[in-house]
Amino acid sequence: MTARRVNRERLWSALMEIGTIGETPDQGCRRLALSEQDAQARRVLTAWASSAGCAVSQDAIGNLFLRRPGLNPDAPAVAMGSHLDTVHTGGKFDGVLGVIAGLEVMRVLNESDIRTRAPVELVVWTNEEGARFSPMTMGSSVFVGDLALDVALAQKDAAGVSVSEALNESGLAGERRGSHPLAAYLELHVEQGPLLKEGGEAIGIVTGSFRAHYFVATITGEAGHVGPTLMEHRRDAFAAAAELTIEIERIGRARGRQGRSNAPHVEVYPNARGVIPASVRLSCDLRHADANEVGRMEEELRQAARDIAARRGVSVALDPYFQFGPLACDGTMNDLIRRNADALGLRHRDMLTVASHDAVPMMRFCPTALFFVPSETGVSHNPAEFSTPQQCSDGADLLLNAVLELSGA
Amino acid sequence: MTARRVNRERLWSALMEIGTIGETPDQGCRRLALSEQDAQARRVLTAWASSAGCAVSQDAIGNLFLRRPGLNPDAPAVAMGSHLDTVHTGGKFDGVLGVIAGLEVMRVLNESDIRTRAPVELVVWTNEEGARFSPMTMGSSVFVGDLALDVALAQKDAAGVSVSEALNESGLAGERRGSHPLAAYLELHVEQGPLLKEGGEAIGIVTGSFRAHYFVATITGEAGHVGPTLMEHRRDAFAAAAELTIEIERIGRARGRQGRSNAPHVEVYPNARGVIPASVRLSCDLRHADANEVGRMEEELRQAARDIAARRGVSVALDPYFQFGPLACDGTMNDLIRRNADALGLRHRDMLTVASHDAVPMMRFCPTALFFVPSETGVSHNPAEFSTPQQCSDGADLLLNAVLELSGA
Repeated sequence: MTARRVNRERLWSALMEIGTIGETPDQGCRRLALSEQDAQARRVLTAWASSAGCAVSQDAIGNLFLRRPGLNPDAPAVAMGSHLDTVHTGGKFDGVLGVIAGLEVMRVLNESDIRTRAPVELVVWTNEEGARFSPMTMGSSVFVGDLALDVALAQKDAAGVSVSEALNESGLAGERRGSHPLAAYLELHVEQGPLLKEGGEAIGIVTGSFRAHYFVATITGEAGHVGPTLMEHRRDAFAAAAELTIEIERIGRARGRQGRSNAPHVEVYPNARGVIPASVRLSCDLRHADANEVGRMEEELRQAARDIAARRGVSVALDPYFQFGPLACDGTMNDLIRRNADALGLRHRDMLTVASHDAVPMMRFCPTALFFVPSETGVSHNPAEFSTPQQCSDGADLLLNAVLELSGA
Repeated sequence: MTARRVNRERLWSALMEIGTIGETPDQGCRRLALSEQDAQARRVLTAWASSAGCAVSQDAIGNLFLRRPGLNPDAPAVAMGSHLDTVHTGGKFDGVLGVIAGLEVMRVLNESDIRTRAPVELVVWTNEEGARFSPMTMGSSVFVGDLALDVALAQKDAAGVSVSEALNESGLAGERRGSHPLAAYLELHVEQGPLLKEGGEAIGIVTGSFRAHYFVATITGEAGHVGPTLMEHRRDAFAAAAELTIEIERIGRARGRQGRSNAPHVEVYPNARGVIPASVRLSCDLRHADANEVGRMEEELRQAARDIAARRGVSVALDPYFQFGPLACDGTMNDLIRRNADALGLRHRDMLTVASHDAVPMMRFCPTALFFVPSETGVSHNPAEFSTPQQCSDGADLLLNAVLELSGA
């Protein structure tokens, strides 16, 4: 069978049009989950998908399902998906590429008069990023049953607005219902790192993941006046947190390209210019390609925390709040992606994902494949995030052909 | 002339009663400037002062003036004062002691039927702490003309509420008017450090101050995804800020008891678990008993900032936003305090203040004295802040006798 190809210009044009919704002055995008910008992007997409003959539905966590009927209406759908929400400092490719490529697949099926045996579904998952509401991959986690709907609905953003309120305000709340069976799930995403660009491959096939341990470090010192309190008497929680932050960074750096470590989120109390910080909550994580090594990284972190606590007379509690990986992806699905990439003449490599994606919860639900196209700039969660029209359409071509094979066209 | 004494039990009882307003579960106090708690404390005080025959007035920044008439109504008043606002982690003595001791002086004058030549005034200054609104010593700075009223009224708290709105909501806004002349200003305050307790003196007479340089360090790195971004490619603004925080602490510690350094307030952007921090604003300060040494501390800080910027590929801008000291206090006023302490049999020592107080702006306005009583716990801006009834009444005795001498009783 000859490989089919998408319309690159049409794909790019739709990508750029969605990118104007929530566009920032630095050419990035801020489209926080369930914001007016998120709702607007979904309305535009829904209009396009409706014109392409898709049936539209939403579930109670706001996941949006755009379904093209199959010859066999009882067959479980072949699904494509990703997300339209971004972080505060987002770009125009993370998430949105997988969604818009799915729309382009629908358009190609229509204009080529292709009737698939199974229905084909495009899914926009709610709050993948976790930038406004915790946890991340919220919508897909609720869909597969990993996260209870009512727990998710009760989560609040920094302003105290709950997911439930945001869904109602943005008009994105759908009906309470369970998940429906899917024959397969395919997610195209931008790499968000520099490896494909460095190696010159068009496609990265995700065969597994890093292992990640996430913690909240709670450091408790003692408030005091910033002036009269002698340096020797201080138990400054923020200075202790600063030291821990440097240790966290060191632990990741020491592992070269196989390790990662972060301390990206901090809350200081009382965070006032006149008061020595009494307590700090520092969110942090440790990641490694080798799952066993993360345990050793954690032991180093715990030792550093003990040393800092003893030396500074503060307490440091490290509470795990999340773990991730190592994933073992579906070999059959990856073979299918590999075969189709070869048929399209696309150079590919296997790789691990360092970050989670909606495909991660989906892996436990149905046969799933996650694959990447290169990031031209090697950065993501950044306005400079960029993939070229060719890089994007290579990924969409692969998505199209995988869908055709899976849906029995 | 025989030294007079205050009623220790009455003083303590009033202190403790004010301490119930905004009391926290850990026996501390949170009475942020222009909050309902602040307004409530002022209402209670005003009722007491009115009963003691004082005329009540407020100016446009909310400074509260409680005036006992003198035999010569045209003579400028002898003023006592301090503040009733606290930091978030406040105690029951910082500020409130100076105010309640002033009330106790009024009560002693009344019950002893003392007619002073000059009026005697008790002043409650607005927002000394600067914990809710910047800058600190707001009310006294406006009174003496160092800070423009309209600039002060436009300042906003973290929730976006302006000083002007808070004054109107709390009913604390008074009439727009200039300052009125004062013959002298006396401020009794708790030490907030351990030196008097260590030395066993009852009174610390402030002869001068530390020199302090205040900065906002703005660190600009690059946002990125916390997962796929290689450690070697990162320009993490928070890790850089953490390193700068450790350097700031080191610079102060290296000066022993003569030095101080702080980094008590931080804002991280975007402060999200999924994003490498793009930028950080860190408020910091450097202080020393020797004004010249602060310049050297600043040079060390600037060198550290340059090193961190170069090594990490971030930018670090250090923008001064405030300077303080060195003060040279009024020698004649200090002699008067010394003489009265001796008459009361109170051991005293000269000392420098490390923190600013309302007495600091007042020093440029009229003859001013600032004196401390010991902190039993050596801490302040902390629920554990404590001075004993005897320590408090020693200070109030001294305030009383100084007022009697200055007001021509």
